[in-house]
Amino acid sequence: MISPVWFENDNLNIIDQTKLPGKEVYLQLETKEAVWEAIKELKVRGAPAIGVAAAYGLYISVRDLQCCSFEEFETEFRNIKEYIASSRPTAVNLFWALNRMEKKMYALKSSVDDGICVVQKYILKNDENGSVCEPLENISPDDLPWQEKQDYITNELLKEAHLIRAEDIAACEAMGKFGLSLLEPGMGILTHCNAGTLATAMYGTCLAPIHLGQESGYGFKVFADETRPLLQGARLTSWELAKSGVDVTLICDNMASAVMKQGKIQAVVVGCDRMAANGDGANKIGTSGVAILAKEYGIPFYMYVPTSTIDLNTPTGDDIIIEERDGEEIYKMWYEQPMAPEEVKTYNPAFDVTDHKYITAVITEKGIVYPPYDENLRKVIGKYE
Amino acid sequence: MISPVWFENDNLNIIDQTKLPGKEVYLQLETKEAVWEAIKELKVRGAPAIGVAAAYGLYISVRDLQCCSFEEFETEFRNIKEYIASSRPTAVNLFWALNRMEKKMYALKSSVDDGICVVQKYILKNDENGSVCEPLENISPDDLPWQEKQDYITNELLKEAHLIRAEDIAACEAMGKFGLSLLEPGMGILTHCNAGTLATAMYGTCLAPIHLGQESGYGFKVFADETRPLLQGARLTSWELAKSGVDVTLICDNMASAVMKQGKIQAVVVGCDRMAANGDGANKIGTSGVAILAKEYGIPFYMYVPTSTIDLNTPTGDDIIIEERDGEEIYKMWYEQPMAPEEVKTYNPAFDVTDHKYITAVITEKGIVYPPYDENLRKVIGKYE
Repeated sequence: MISPVWFENDNLNIIDQTKLPGKEVYLQLETKEAVWEAIKELKVRGAPAIGVAAAYGLYISVRDLQCCSFEEFETEFRNIKEYIASSRPTAVNLFWALNRMEKKMYALKSSVDDGICVVQKYILKNDENGSVCEPLENISPDDLPWQEKQDYITNELLKEAHLIRAEDIAACEAMGKFGLSLLEPGMGILTHCNAGTLATAMYGTCLAPIHLGQESGYGFKVFADETRPLLQGARLTSWELAKSGVDVTLICDNMASAVMKQGKIQAVVVGCDRMAANGDGANKIGTSGVAILAKEYGIPFYMYVPTSTIDLNTPTGDDIIIEERDGEEIYKMWYEQPMAPEEVKTYNPAFDVTDHKYITAVITEKGIVYPPYDENLRKVIGKYE
Repeated sequence: MISPVWFENDNLNIIDQTKLPGKEVYLQLETKEAVWEAIKELKVRGAPAIGVAAAYGLYISVRDLQCCSFEEFETEFRNIKEYIASSRPTAVNLFWALNRMEKKMYALKSSVDDGICVVQKYILKNDENGSVCEPLENISPDDLPWQEKQDYITNELLKEAHLIRAEDIAACEAMGKFGLSLLEPGMGILTHCNAGTLATAMYGTCLAPIHLGQESGYGFKVFADETRPLLQGARLTSWELAKSGVDVTLICDNMASAVMKQGKIQAVVVGCDRMAANGDGANKIGTSGVAILAKEYGIPFYMYVPTSTIDLNTPTGDDIIIEERDGEEIYKMWYEQPMAPEEVKTYNPAFDVTDHKYITAVITEKGIVYPPYDENLRKVIGKYE
C-alpha cells in the first residue's frame, strides 16, 4: 500500500505529488527548508498528510540542534515551528500537528525536570539488563548534561510523529472497514476529487474501503470524476487506484449522470472537509451535484468524515463559508500534460439523453411545446405540414 | 449580431472558430479546397453553420467552371459536391445542404430546358425596361449558348444558398422569440455547451433568446458551463455572449449545483442534437445532469429543438445511440491557452455543501452514522469522550 509520507533512512520521505501522474518522484527531506518547500509547493498535500509531514519535519529540524540549555532549545524549537507553519497559512492540520508536537515537547521537558523519563532512559541505555524500568532515585536530573536530555526529548518527539502517522492510518483503516461493510464485491463505485491515500498517511478516507476491498479481492469498478478545475480526480485518484491495481475509469465531471443512468454505479463515496451538526457536509466543489444525481437514480451516497471534521458548533451548511479561488484556474490550464496517467481507462460519451420528465418546455421554431410530449411533439411537427 | 458564416465581397466568409477565443481571425474562402479544409478542421462547426458554409462553398466552386455542355457541368458539379461532402462524413446537415443545392440545380436545368427562366433572364438583361417578365416565345432555348444558361443556374444557386442561410436565421430568431416569452428581464440563466450563433447562421438555438433579450435590454446574467472535455462553453459560449455584451460568467461543469442552490439561476436553456418522439432529448454530455439539478432546485429547464431535430421514428431516448469518443480528449489538454477569453468573468468556489438529505450514511473512524444526523453525529463524537 502506497503512503505519500513516511520515515525511513532516518529521514522524512514523500512522493512529490506535483509530478504525478507524469512521473513518480520520491524525495528525501533532510532540512527544514526542504520540508517548508514541500508543503508550500503542494509536493505533499491533503490535510492529514500535511500534518504528518509537518510533525516529522519539526523532528528532523530540531534533532541536531546544539544547545546549552532548555531556553536555547525552546527558542530554536519555536522558531522552527513558526517557520514550518508559515508554509501553508490556512492548513488547519498543519497547525494542529505542530501544536501537538510542541505540547509534547513541553510535557517531555516536565518529565525531564522531574527526573522521570530521561533518568530512566539513561539507565536503560547503560544497563545490559533492559528490564530496569523504575527511575533510579539516587541520580539527580541535574547531574545530566542538557544535550543528553535534549536527545531524549527529540527521540521521544520522533515517536510522537510516528504516533500521529499511526493514528491517521488507524483512523483511515477503521473508516475503510466500516465503509467496506456497506459495499458488495463487484460494485461500480463513483468518487469525486481525491480523499485517498495521497491525502492521508495511508488508505485515505473515502478511498480506504476501495483499497481494502482490493486487498480482499472485491473487484470494484471505480469511476473517478476528473474534478475540475484542479483535476485531483484525474491526476491523483486515477493514479493511486491504478497503482493499487483497482479497475478505475476516468470520466469528466459532467458524465456522472450518464454512467449512473446506465446502471454502472451502485454506490458513491466522497470525503468531507467540514460537516455541520445537522449533517450538511462541505466538500470539493461538485460533490452536492453528485449527491443529487445519486438520490435521483436511487444510488446510496456515502460521505467519509473523520470525527475531527465534524463541527458541532456549526449548526447547518449555510453557516459554512466557502473559499472562492482565482478564476485563472478555470480559464488557464495550469497543469502540464498529461493531466492523467496516459494508460488510464476512460469513458468519453459525447452526448447524453435528458429524460423528458426533466424538460419543462421544448422550444421549436414553430412554437413552444409542453408535456405530454408524445402527443404535442407530433402536433408541432405537423403544424405546417 | 455576429454570424460565423456569411457571403460578402463575392466570397464565403467565416470566423475561424479554431482560433477562438484567443484570436479573432476572419477567413475569406475562395476555392473548394479552402471550404473543404475549413469544414474538416472545424474552422466552421455546428450543424446549421456547416450546412450554410457547404451551400455557399458549392456555389463558389462551380460559378467559374468553363463547360461546353450540361453533361460536362453536371459531372463537375457532382464531383465538387462529393468532395465537399467528404470533409465531415458524419455531418448530416452538410449532406442535407449539398443535396438541397443539387436538387435545385436539376430543377433549374429543367427550367432552362423548358425555356422559361433563362430566356426570361436573357430578355431582362438586354431590355432597359426591367418590367418585362413574360418569357418570349419566339426565342428557343436552343438558341442560347450553354455558358449563358450555366451562369443563370449558378446565379440562382447563390440565391438558394442565401435562402438556406436566411431560413436558418429565421428559425433561430423564431426560437429566440418563443424562448424570450418564457424569460423575465434580469434573470440568471444557465447554459451548457454552445448552441449559439457560432453553431448556426445567426442567433443560435438556445442562445437566441439571450442575444435577442440583450438587444432589448433584458440584462440577463448568464452562467456558462465550460463543458468538458472539449470546452465549447468556455471557448465559444463565453466568447460569443461577451461579444454581444451579455453579462456572462464561466463556471466548471461541477459548479452548476452550487450556483443553483445560491439562487443565481432562474432558468436553464440548452440545445438538442436529437429528440425522440416521447420528448427525451440527446444533447452534449452533461445536459441530463443539469436537468436533474434544475428539477431538484425547482428551476425550469428549456430545451431548444428545431423541428428537423425531432425524430418521431425514435420512440424514446433509449433508442438513441450515443457516440463514444477517444479518451485522449479527457486525459490530454488539446487546446492551447487560454481556454476561455482571459477577460471572462469566472466564479470559482472551491467547495460546495451537500445537504444532509442526500447523504445515505456518514462513515467515521468510530462507526457508521445514519440519519437523523442532528442526533447521531453527537453520539458518535461522544462515543469515546
